[in-house]
Amino acid sequence: MGRVVVDVMPKPEILDPQGKAVAAALPRLGFSGFTGVRQGKRFELEVDGPVTDEVLDQVRRAAETLLSNPVIEDVVRVAAAEEHDGATA
Amino acid sequence: MGRVVVDVMPKPEILDPQGKAVAAALPRLGFSGFTGVRQGKRFELEVDGPVTDEVLDQVRRAAETLLSNPVIEDVVRVAAAEEHDGATA
Repeated sequence: MGRVVVDVMPKPEILDPQGKAVAAALPRLGFSGFTGVRQGKRFELEVDGPVTDEVLDQVRRAAETLLSNPVIEDVVRVAAAEEHDGATA
Repeated sequence: MGRVVVDVMPKPEILDPQGKAVAAALPRLGFSGFTGVRQGKRFELEVDGPVTDEVLDQVRRAAETLLSNPVIEDVVRVAAAEEHDGATA
Protein backbone atom coordinates (compact mmCIF):
# COMPACT_ATOMS: atom_id res chain seq x y z
CA MET A 1 0.00 0.00 0.00
CA GLY A 2 1.61 3.20 -1.20
CA ARG A 3 0.72 6.73 -0.33
CA VAL A 4 0.78 9.86 -2.48
CA VAL A 5 0.91 13.35 -1.02
CA VAL A 6 -0.64 16.34 -2.80
CA ASP A 7 0.01 19.88 -1.58
CA VAL A 8 -2.26 22.71 -2.69
CA MET A 9 -1.64 26.37 -1.85
CA PRO A 10 -3.58 29.56 -2.57
CA LYS A 11 -2.08 31.50 -5.48
CA PRO A 12 0.19 34.36 -4.36
CA GLU A 13 -2.20 37.03 -5.68
CA ILE A 14 -5.17 35.54 -3.82
CA LEU A 15 -6.06 36.88 -0.38
CA ASP A 16 -5.60 34.20 2.27
CA PRO A 17 -7.57 35.22 5.37
CA GLN A 18 -6.68 32.08 7.35
CA GLY A 19 -2.98 32.67 6.72
CA LYS A 20 -3.38 36.34 7.65
CA ALA A 21 -5.09 35.34 10.92
CA VAL A 22 -2.24 32.97 11.79
CA ALA A 23 0.35 35.62 10.90
CA ALA A 24 -1.40 38.12 13.20
CA ALA A 25 -1.65 35.61 16.06
CA LEU A 26 2.03 34.56 16.03
CA PRO A 27 3.48 37.73 17.63
CA ARG A 28 0.62 37.84 20.17
CA LEU A 29 1.69 34.36 21.30
CA GLY A 30 5.34 35.36 21.52
CA PHE A 31 6.56 34.00 18.19
CA SER A 32 8.56 36.70 16.39
CA GLY A 33 10.50 37.00 13.16
CA PHE A 34 7.80 35.81 10.78
CA THR A 35 6.81 38.04 7.89
CA GLY A 36 3.93 36.11 6.43
CA VAL A 37 1.92 32.90 6.54
CA ARG A 38 -0.02 31.12 3.80
CA GLN A 39 -2.39 28.29 4.59
CA GLY A 40 -3.13 25.57 2.08
CA LYS A 41 -4.22 21.96 1.97
CA ARG A 42 -2.44 18.65 2.14
CA PHE A 43 -4.00 15.43 0.86
CA GLU A 44 -2.77 11.91 1.52
CA LEU A 45 -4.11 9.35 -0.97
CA GLU A 46 -3.75 5.68 -0.10
CA VAL A 47 -3.04 3.62 -3.18
CA ASP A 48 -4.08 -0.01 -3.61
CA GLY A 49 -0.59 -1.15 -4.67
CA PRO A 50 2.75 0.48 -5.38
CA VAL A 51 3.08 4.12 -6.45
CA THR A 52 3.86 3.77 -10.15
CA ASP A 53 4.24 6.52 -12.75
CA GLU A 54 0.69 5.75 -13.94
CA VAL A 55 -0.62 6.28 -10.41
CA LEU A 56 1.25 9.58 -10.13
CA ASP A 57 -0.16 10.68 -13.52
CA GLN A 58 -3.64 9.86 -12.29
CA VAL A 59 -3.08 11.76 -9.04
CA ARG A 60 -1.76 14.76 -10.98
CA ARG A 61 -4.98 14.85 -13.02
CA ALA A 62 -7.10 14.43 -9.89
CA ALA A 63 -5.12 17.20 -8.19
CA GLU A 64 -5.88 19.66 -11.01
CA THR A 65 -9.56 18.78 -11.29
CA LEU A 66 -10.83 17.65 -7.88
CA LEU A 67 -8.31 18.55 -5.19
CA SER A 68 -7.64 22.13 -6.24
CA ASN A 69 -9.51 25.04 -7.76
CA PRO A 70 -7.14 26.18 -10.53
CA VAL A 71 -8.60 29.69 -10.50
CA ILE A 72 -7.37 30.40 -6.99
CA GLU A 73 -5.00 27.56 -6.07
CA ASP A 74 -1.75 25.98 -7.27
CA VAL A 75 -0.84 22.31 -6.92
CA VAL A 76 2.67 22.76 -5.52
CA ARG A 77 3.58 19.10 -5.05
CA VAL A 78 2.48 15.61 -6.10
CA ALA A 79 4.85 12.95 -4.80
CA ALA A 80 5.05 9.51 -3.29
CA ALA A 81 5.13 9.87 0.50
CA GLU A 82 8.69 10.02 1.76
CA GLU A 83 9.99 9.02 5.14
CA HIS A 84 9.79 12.55 6.51
CA ASP A 85 6.20 12.84 5.33
CA GLY A 86 5.59 10.43 8.18
CA ALA A 87 2.64 8.26 8.93
CA THR A 88 -0.17 10.16 10.55
CA ALA A 89 -0.20 7.52 13.29
CA MET B 1 14.13 35.15 3.44
CA GLY B 2 13.61 31.52 4.39
CA ARG B 3 10.44 29.54 4.41
CA VAL B 4 9.30 26.82 6.80
CA VAL B 5 6.61 24.30 5.90
CA VAL B 6 4.32 22.79 8.54
CA ASP B 7 2.06 19.85 7.68
CA VAL B 8 -0.87 19.00 9.95
CA MET B 9 -3.08 15.95 9.46
CA PRO B 10 -6.15 14.66 11.29
CA LYS B 11 -5.29 11.82 13.68
CA PRO B 12 -6.03 8.37 12.19
CA GLU B 13 -8.81 7.66 14.69
CA ILE B 14 -10.57 10.94 13.89
CA LEU B 15 -13.31 10.96 11.25
CA ASP B 16 -12.29 13.10 8.28
CA PRO B 17 -15.44 14.02 6.31
CA GLN B 18 -13.55 16.11 3.73
CA GLY B 19 -11.19 13.22 3.01
CA LYS B 20 -14.15 10.83 2.79
CA ALA B 21 -15.89 13.15 0.31
CA VAL B 22 -12.78 13.25 -1.89
CA ALA B 23 -12.38 9.46 -1.67
CA ALA B 24 -16.01 9.01 -2.77
CA ALA B 25 -15.64 11.48 -5.66
CA LEU B 26 -12.48 9.93 -7.14
CA PRO B 27 -14.12 6.83 -8.70
CA ARG B 28 -17.07 8.92 -9.93
CA LEU B 29 -14.56 11.04 -11.90
CA GLY B 30 -12.81 7.98 -13.30
CA PHE B 31 -9.88 7.75 -10.90
CA SER B 32 -9.59 4.20 -9.61
CA GLY B 33 -7.27 2.29 -7.31
CA PHE B 34 -7.44 4.58 -4.30
CA THR B 35 -8.46 3.09 -0.98
CA GLY B 36 -8.61 6.18 1.18
CA VAL B 37 -7.98 9.92 1.37
CA ARG B 38 -7.13 12.11 4.35
CA GLN B 39 -7.22 15.89 4.12
CA GLY B 40 -5.04 18.06 6.30
CA LYS B 41 -3.45 21.48 6.31
CA ARG B 42 -0.20 22.87 5.01
CA PHE B 43 1.27 26.13 6.30
CA GLU B 44 4.11 28.11 4.75
CA LEU B 45 5.73 30.53 7.18
CA GLU B 46 8.00 33.22 5.72
CA VAL B 47 10.95 33.88 7.98
CA ASP B 48 12.73 37.23 8.26
CA GLY B 49 16.22 35.74 7.75
CA PRO B 50 17.67 32.27 7.40
CA VAL B 51 15.96 29.16 8.76
CA THR B 52 18.10 28.40 11.82
CA ASP B 53 17.58 25.69 14.44
CA GLU B 54 16.12 28.37 16.74
CA VAL B 55 13.58 29.30 14.08
CA LEU B 56 12.63 25.65 13.60
CA ASP B 57 12.24 25.24 17.38
CA GLN B 58 9.96 28.24 17.45
CA VAL B 59 7.92 26.93 14.52
CA ARG B 60 7.62 23.52 16.22
CA ARG B 61 6.15 25.19 19.31
CA ALA B 62 3.83 27.33 17.18
CA ALA B 63 2.76 24.21 15.27
CA GLU B 64 1.75 22.44 18.49
CA THR B 65 -0.08 25.42 20.00
CA LEU B 66 -1.49 27.56 17.19
CA LEU B 67 -1.37 25.64 13.89
CA SER B 68 -2.82 22.35 15.13
CA ASN B 69 -5.36 21.13 17.64
CA PRO B 70 -3.44 18.36 19.45
CA VAL B 71 -6.68 16.63 20.46
CA ILE B 72 -7.61 15.80 16.87
CA GLU B 73 -4.54 16.58 14.75
CA ASP B 74 -0.90 15.55 14.41
CA VAL B 75 1.92 17.77 13.23
CA VAL B 76 3.49 15.41 10.69
CA ARG B 77 6.26 17.66 9.42
CA VAL B 78 8.13 20.85 10.28
CA ALA B 79 10.94 21.56 7.84
CA ALA B 80 12.70 24.26 5.89
CA ALA B 81 11.12 24.46 2.45
CA GLU B 82 12.96 22.27 -0.05
CA GLU B 83 13.19 22.74 -3.77
CA HIS B 84 10.32 20.36 -4.46
CA ASP B 85 8.15 22.25 -1.99
CA GLY B 86 8.26 24.88 -4.70
CA ALA B 87 7.34 28.50 -4.60
CA THR B 88 3.62 29.05 -4.73
CA ALA B 89 4.22 31.43 -7.64
